[in-house]
Amino acid sequence: MYQNFTTPSSPHTGAPRLKALRAALKAAGLDSFLIPRVDAHQGENVAPCDERLAWLTGFTGSDGHCAVLQDIAGVFVDGRYTLQVRQQIDTDVFTPQAIPDDKLSAWLIKHLKSGTVGYDPMLHSHDAVSTLEAALAPQITLKQCANMVDAVWQNRPAAPAAPIRPHPVEFAGKPSAEKRRELAAKLVEAGLAATILTLPDSIAWLLNIRGSDIAHTPVPLAFAIVHDDARVSLITNPAKSSPALAAHLGPDVTIIPPDGFAATLQALTGKVGVDRATAPIWVSQQLNSPAWFADPCILPKACKNEAELNGSRQAHLRDGAAMCEFLAWLETGIEGLTEIDVVKKLEGFRRTSNALTDISFDTICGTGPNGAIVHYRVDEASNRPIENNTLLLVDSGGQYMDGTTDITRTVIIGTPDAEMTRAFTLVLKGMIALSKLRFPAGIAGAHIDSLARAPLWAAGLDYKHGTGHGVGAYLSVHEGPARISRAGEVALQTGMILSNEPGYYREGEWGIRIENLLIVTPPKPVEGGEAPMHSFETLNFVPIDTRLIDPALLAKPERQWLNDYHAEVLQKIGPLVESATFAWLKTACAPV
Amino acid sequence: MYQNFTTPSSPHTGAPRLKALRAALKAAGLDSFLIPRVDAHQGENVAPCDERLAWLTGFTGSDGHCAVLQDIAGVFVDGRYTLQVRQQIDTDVFTPQAIPDDKLSAWLIKHLKSGTVGYDPMLHSHDAVSTLEAALAPQITLKQCANMVDAVWQNRPAAPAAPIRPHPVEFAGKPSAEKRRELAAKLVEAGLAATILTLPDSIAWLLNIRGSDIAHTPVPLAFAIVHDDARVSLITNPAKSSPALAAHLGPDVTIIPPDGFAATLQALTGKVGVDRATAPIWVSQQLNSPAWFADPCILPKACKNEAELNGSRQAHLRDGAAMCEFLAWLETGIEGLTEIDVVKKLEGFRRTSNALTDISFDTICGTGPNGAIVHYRVDEASNRPIENNTLLLVDSGGQYMDGTTDITRTVIIGTPDAEMTRAFTLVLKGMIALSKLRFPAGIAGAHIDSLARAPLWAAGLDYKHGTGHGVGAYLSVHEGPARISRAGEVALQTGMILSNEPGYYREGEWGIRIENLLIVTPPKPVEGGEAPMHSFETLNFVPIDTRLIDPALLAKPERQWLNDYHAEVLQKIGPLVESATFAWLKTACAPV
Repeated sequence: MYQNFTTPSSPHTGAPRLKALRAALKAAGLDSFLIPRVDAHQGENVAPCDERLAWLTGFTGSDGHCAVLQDIAGVFVDGRYTLQVRQQIDTDVFTPQAIPDDKLSAWLIKHLKSGTVGYDPMLHSHDAVSTLEAALAPQITLKQCANMVDAVWQNRPAAPAAPIRPHPVEFAGKPSAEKRRELAAKLVEAGLAATILTLPDSIAWLLNIRGSDIAHTPVPLAFAIVHDDARVSLITNPAKSSPALAAHLGPDVTIIPPDGFAATLQALTGKVGVDRATAPIWVSQQLNSPAWFADPCILPKACKNEAELNGSRQAHLRDGAAMCEFLAWLETGIEGLTEIDVVKKLEGFRRTSNALTDISFDTICGTGPNGAIVHYRVDEASNRPIENNTLLLVDSGGQYMDGTTDITRTVIIGTPDAEMTRAFTLVLKGMIALSKLRFPAGIAGAHIDSLARAPLWAAGLDYKHGTGHGVGAYLSVHEGPARISRAGEVALQTGMILSNEPGYYREGEWGIRIENLLIVTPPKPVEGGEAPMHSFETLNFVPIDTRLIDPALLAKPERQWLNDYHAEVLQKIGPLVESATFAWLKTACAPV
Repeated sequence: MYQNFTTPSSPHTGAPRLKALRAALKAAGLDSFLIPRVDAHQGENVAPCDERLAWLTGFTGSDGHCAVLQDIAGVFVDGRYTLQVRQQIDTDVFTPQAIPDDKLSAWLIKHLKSGTVGYDPMLHSHDAVSTLEAALAPQITLKQCANMVDAVWQNRPAAPAAPIRPHPVEFAGKPSAEKRRELAAKLVEAGLAATILTLPDSIAWLLNIRGSDIAHTPVPLAFAIVHDDARVSLITNPAKSSPALAAHLGPDVTIIPPDGFAATLQALTGKVGVDRATAPIWVSQQLNSPAWFADPCILPKACKNEAELNGSRQAHLRDGAAMCEFLAWLETGIEGLTEIDVVKKLEGFRRTSNALTDISFDTICGTGPNGAIVHYRVDEASNRPIENNTLLLVDSGGQYMDGTTDITRTVIIGTPDAEMTRAFTLVLKGMIALSKLRFPAGIAGAHIDSLARAPLWAAGLDYKHGTGHGVGAYLSVHEGPARISRAGEVALQTGMILSNEPGYYREGEWGIRIENLLIVTPPKPVEGGEAPMHSFETLNFVPIDTRLIDPALLAKPERQWLNDYHAEVLQKIGPLVESATFAWLKTACAPV
């Protein structure tokens, strides 16, 4: 199993660890120390050795930070984790704080008044440090120091050193040497001698490599220096390499062990580009002549080429077949089943293809009230039996060498009530509005997020998350720079893959979310039109539960979209499933 | 007539005036001088004495700027004015430049290479100067100087000095003293001793006064200093005052003549707030201790109170009746009519109420290909006869003491072809989508602009202007800070008035635009919903030409909206029109 169901929290260790940290701060002459959740690569998932926030506080969510003073320690988390943080930390010694209402700077000014705040320069970007510094000045100053958590963390796990694998050009679509040449040309154009990459998925994309250092995202942890002559220095543990990797990387890529990173940066001459928003502030401080330069891999990585898109199409057909086997199996009876059983079974169906290399994130599987928890991860403590006449929300995905998948389906176990049907149909209307949208060049996610919400808004309903995120090509299931949300300011461009996942959550009762991934197609002329228009190509082919749809609430073009979609599901997935599943699929895909 | 139809351009005066200006620059030791269209109040409409750009170049558009060097003079205008600028200027001596592709800074670097660029510090804001300065450094420097155009402008008109009128509290809804107290409280909260207002509509709003210094916008030209004890110094020509005005303003408002402005600013003690984006850079330079502080009148002015909204409702009923008389008259025959005749007739119908104090902007009246020019203003040269089987686009509005109106209707003269009907119906669908939208707090124009475009996008069509602008309460017909466009980042808030005016323009053939104004209603619970939602209340009640609608393209709720709207038009406007017009109105409002 790629997923586990343990509850890793241990609130009782918080007090002694906090005590040890405070003693270390005193000895170092620091009044406070900051512990973010992120690692030096600003990742959503981090390796066990980088789980400093969880080690200290017990909080295991994917986002948050802690500030430790001698007399108070605040744990800052956003709305997704308000409940979870209270279950996981010892609130006698840690004080939960709600982002964005509670701001770290205001909290520090209130509780510390004046003094020095220590931080590890590998874990904070230039922009983050500058913003905080300005907000705290002049009474409170920031001070770089060694990581004080690491200093007191006994039996800290070693850094991961999983083998790095070449990623075949059949899937990558473009040889690494070509990507490196193109990037080098950009450096020359910008007058830079080199640039530093600190995001593992940028490096994995550029070098056509994959790894297994962290869960669910197939990247190696590494830094890289890209020179203006297209040579690359890859900073990572040489134990991750192999003759096959060396052959793949070729003579222009040199591996440098992490303890040589500082000296290598210090020896660079000429202007060197650094991403001020994502690189550790430590990086620019090593350079003789740093220049701000946004990570040049982010946009080309997001705009997938034909090979990557074809891979993603294949991965989604394979994944769709597994999802259909799973949904058909669910229909055979739920007697004695729990959420954990359902998650295990679904992973089993995904594994039958033998192509699954990991799940792309911990499956969200919530029945009844658990379905209303947007970022729910089932564990032994929260596990609920699947009951009759309730909704079951399953948000899951797989990592395949040809693509990263992500899909959400909500199904009725038994018979829905009128409220479920009405809400499901309104969510579906929004999801269809985006699926069939045409739009001109230049439109960003912020401009179309409302189209997915308008049917819910008309009924006085809404959902408190974005409508969609970018998805990588056998990389991160959450990938920038574009997203469909009010904060999505990057234009949607040809080849981007984005999720389309409106929802509705009735707290304490049930939750609904329907999610397909979409490819942004090239702008094409429209018959009778003048301006070429982008549209979306749907990647997922899995039935949407028609038992939850009130056809009277659908406009004719919406019903047409749904029936066309189900016809395509049957045609594409039908040949890929067992015969019993095919019989279920035919019923599930019947027109409404 | 408030509107005239002369073509004020005189290309032949460009060469001698440019020659005189260049001689003056040489004498002053300047390599270049900047001539913006705006006055010291950054207004869209300016007084004749401030028409420096038009005097020098001949270009009379509402936006643009000129940069004069010894060997070249660039006139920078945006896409609205690409054609017009070439008709109005002498291209032997002036070179048209296209905003935003041609940037002033790049152009200066290319043509001037190095040297000094003079500018009048009354006509440029701190932000504008800083941005330009940074782009030109270090080779080119900016230098403040007296206005070099004024130095060579013979027979320059005098500054306007129209009487300032008290604006009755029945229409303003809140006494000026109360507004001033509230503003003073904000100054105290921000630690400011005073703030400087430079926008005439902010001052008119704060003091409940109106004026006639510029065309179509009923404001007096003035500056104001608001002190933290709620006293106000009003900087304007005392000749504009009267005993009635003095009584209205009361003892806490002191009039200071313009030549006392500098000394008054220099004498201020304590931190003084200045809007860095709209105030002349000259203002902050006079102050001992300036602090950046956005104009505090802009938001409360935009969020109208009940009296202002009721006034606007009344004004739109009165204006709607005039529009209906006009549209009914159009149906009686177009024999021999031209665009100018139509504009005159429409102004005549608006005048019959005896309540019209001005038109709110030059009527846009375009038949056939002229309808496709988005910012068309008819003059003797462009005037076209109204012909059969063409579309007529009329965008117009009035200034009434109780409100500012704005409306666009497009009608068919004769019989439409299928393309006209299809495009008109698609535009209408977008206009209805916004009209019936519900949305939660926090939504900005950028988030909903796409809803008005989606039906056109689906057909490969679009329009190259925003969907809506804010509208004042007997103030400017274009009012910030909110707007419905991709650039509209300010949240739509209760009491704001915004236009909803999607369109479609077939270049060289015809244009379509349908516009109503909308009030943002307070958030209200929706039956069966959870979150209170804003909606829009429509202000204009004038038939939408059903001869141009293909009902087969309308969804059921869209058709319902249209028929409900027309029923309301008949009920509200029917009692206000002549009997012949009533007969026409009944037909025009028949359900589709």
